[in-house]
Amino acid sequence: MAKIITLTTDFGLEDEYVGVMKGVILSRAPGARIVDLTHGIKAQDVRQAAFVLHSASRYFPPDTVHTVVVDPGVGGERKIILLTAGNQLFLAPDNGALSLVHRQDSRIYEVTNDKLFLPAVSRTFHGRDIFAPLAAALVNGLDPAEVGPGLADNEIILLPLSEARIAEREVAGSVIGIDHFGNLITDIHRSMLPGNYSDDLSLFSVKIGARMAEIRACYEDVSEGGLLALFGSRDYLEIAVNRGNAAMLLKSSIDDEIVVSW
Amino acid sequence: MAKIITLTTDFGLEDEYVGVMKGVILSRAPGARIVDLTHGIKAQDVRQAAFVLHSASRYFPPDTVHTVVVDPGVGGERKIILLTAGNQLFLAPDNGALSLVHRQDSRIYEVTNDKLFLPAVSRTFHGRDIFAPLAAALVNGLDPAEVGPGLADNEIILLPLSEARIAEREVAGSVIGIDHFGNLITDIHRSMLPGNYSDDLSLFSVKIGARMAEIRACYEDVSEGGLLALFGSRDYLEIAVNRGNAAMLLKSSIDDEIVVSW
Amino acid sequence: MAKIITLTTDFGLEDEYVGVMKGVILSRAPGARIVDLTHGIKAQDVRQAAFVLHSASRYFPPDTVHTVVVDPGVGGERKIILLTAGNQLFLAPDNGALSLVHRQDSRIYEVTNDKLFLPAVSRTFHGRDIFAPLAAALVNGLDPAEVGPGLADNEIILLPLSEARIAEREVAGSVIGIDHFGNLITDIHRSMLPGNYSDDLSLFSVKIGARMAEIRACYEDVSEGGLLALFGSRDYLEIAVNRGNAAMLLKSSIDDEIVVSW
Repeated sequence: MAKIITLTTDFGLEDEYVGVMKGVILSRAPGARIVDLTHGIKAQDVRQAAFVLHSASRYFPPDTVHTVVVDPGVGGERKIILLTAGNQLFLAPDNGALSLVHRQDSRIYEVTNDKLFLPAVSRTFHGRDIFAPLAAALVNGLDPAEVGPGLADNEIILLPLSEARIAEREVAGSVIGIDHFGNLITDIHRSMLPGNYSDDLSLFSVKIGARMAEIRACYEDVSEGGLLALFGSRDYLEIAVNRGNAAMLLKSSIDDEIVVSW
Repeated sequence: MAKIITLTTDFGLEDEYVGVMKGVILSRAPGARIVDLTHGIKAQDVRQAAFVLHSASRYFPPDTVHTVVVDPGVGGERKIILLTAGNQLFLAPDNGALSLVHRQDSRIYEVTNDKLFLPAVSRTFHGRDIFAPLAAALVNGLDPAEVGPGLADNEIILLPLSEARIAEREVAGSVIGIDHFGNLITDIHRSMLPGNYSDDLSLFSVKIGARMAEIRACYEDVSEGGLLALFGSRDYLEIAVNRGNAAMLLKSSIDDEIVVSW
Repeated sequence: MAKIITLTTDFGLEDEYVGVMKGVILSRAPGARIVDLTHGIKAQDVRQAAFVLHSASRYFPPDTVHTVVVDPGVGGERKIILLTAGNQLFLAPDNGALSLVHRQDSRIYEVTNDKLFLPAVSRTFHGRDIFAPLAAALVNGLDPAEVGPGLADNEIILLPLSEARIAEREVAGSVIGIDHFGNLITDIHRSMLPGNYSDDLSLFSVKIGARMAEIRACYEDVSEGGLLALFGSRDYLEIAVNRGNAAMLLKSSIDDEIVVSW
């Protein structure tokens, strides 16, 4: 059965960069299935990449190789790492992008075995010269330990991606992303609310700037154009407008504060 | 032979939403071929989705499963439907998106069999939790009747998508879309013109705002920068500029009136 | 083993045009692998298409069919050509898009065999009606000579895509593209610099507008926010800002002059 490689980059789709990576992959692993998670990560936004991987990877079959090229330090001193988490593999620059998929039982390797790379490695496009051939080798069945020496957790960069503060009767977080629909995605995870939050949603109120919103189960629970908060598909609190665009309505931007109180 | 699933959504490509749907599909139907029709439907624009499906679906092989997630009512009361048209299958929220592919001999089913869904169904992302596993089951050979009870035509939403009015010696329609090249796509279908329109194109003139254009067979039939009307690849009248951008030239927008007279 | 078709167009991704081409291809070549090089070529920008093909095609396996639909003359008098270069095939309108992949030993054919096209060929969408079925036939093993009569080099359009001038102690070129990261891509190829340029990069200085930059090996060779020049993944000189956007910093645009002196 064909195995899967996913790609997450900040390359955009205007240039040929993503297509070139696929050419290298298919040259070496002709049966690989390649899925674009997104190439729309904001340039060099490691945090956004981390949330995308966390949200998406659990929906892929065993042995999927998730390949992340959000790599502001390309060509410099930063490591490249391979990390296992459950039955999934993650290949990324060592810059924190794997912080949310890292688990207690993850195995981590530093990628150093240059026999697995393209013969000539540029200083500017490791996606093509290192990540693509490595992903191909892994879906071809390469033992992860072949890529290079093992690393301990404290030898890689793990970022505290949610900085939401839990206090008495409130959680204060911030907007960490704005999706295509204008939904404001926060760093307040469902698990940060007390007890079984779904027992009585009306206990909670959400403050964003000068506006208040209630937590509801779905967009249609308020009338068209109405503001609401809900736990979105990533299990993080989102601020939304039913059939509208919350970011535009609230003139919100990344890092705006959001407070849930009860 | 691998069967095909097409995806048509308003998700955009900045987020991981499309990639997650593909993960779910490939987890359940590893051999499926997935084709993106477009993820650039304007948020919640059911009419645009209907035209895209109508234009594209006839070019796909038998048993293709066209999956549409333009779904302003997600999580609310709206039905999800499966519709057959010729040898093609269409899966969509019941909001009119299938109005142009619906045929007299279509069979229609309401999707209710939750054994086909992901085990936990969210209220915000049915693309992932319902549409993706269902599309996978259908390319795996599921009998359409297994998804739920049959529906009659008058139990689903069918929209009159073209509102062009045919009068004596004229057809009055409007701009229903603007494509990537700035071509203005109207709701005036080739079949609305009298006789065999192609016998003498010079019989017709097209009025848009204060400007007049003639109907030609192709862009190159006028000089560079020249305005023209032509029947585009969807068989609807389009207003175009040879090697230019009609929307910018005419400062046109959706719903502008277009009148063909003869 | 499945063979590969790549697609390079100026269609964008908002419309169904790319998806329709894939439907036609998979209807006729169900096992083909399709890779999008990019659909973000600026409308009708033949030069950009030429650079993308040159940069990407060498990374694909033998017998890949690179299909280019950047076609301002669609429906008019322009030829469609098939060109071989090494073990790769290129299918494109005859407008110069293949100028950089053309080689001394290329074989060139004019596409005239309309038995290979869709039964009805429109005047506006040859991507669907001609290019897609032809690409499918080629990955199915069609002999290139079956598409139509051979052509000599002087019967197709070959553009001098780099207009950089090599003078005593300097090369004067221009910005021919701006990539997703804001890097300014020039038409100054690595081979235009004297000797082995990498022996002593400090010999060179690069002038862009009123600013000077040094040539470095990678972005990280200057501090964050610093301006530099480097030979990018296409082997052409690029102007970049480490972890920043050169086009925005320098307010540069296409055709701005760049001078390397030593």
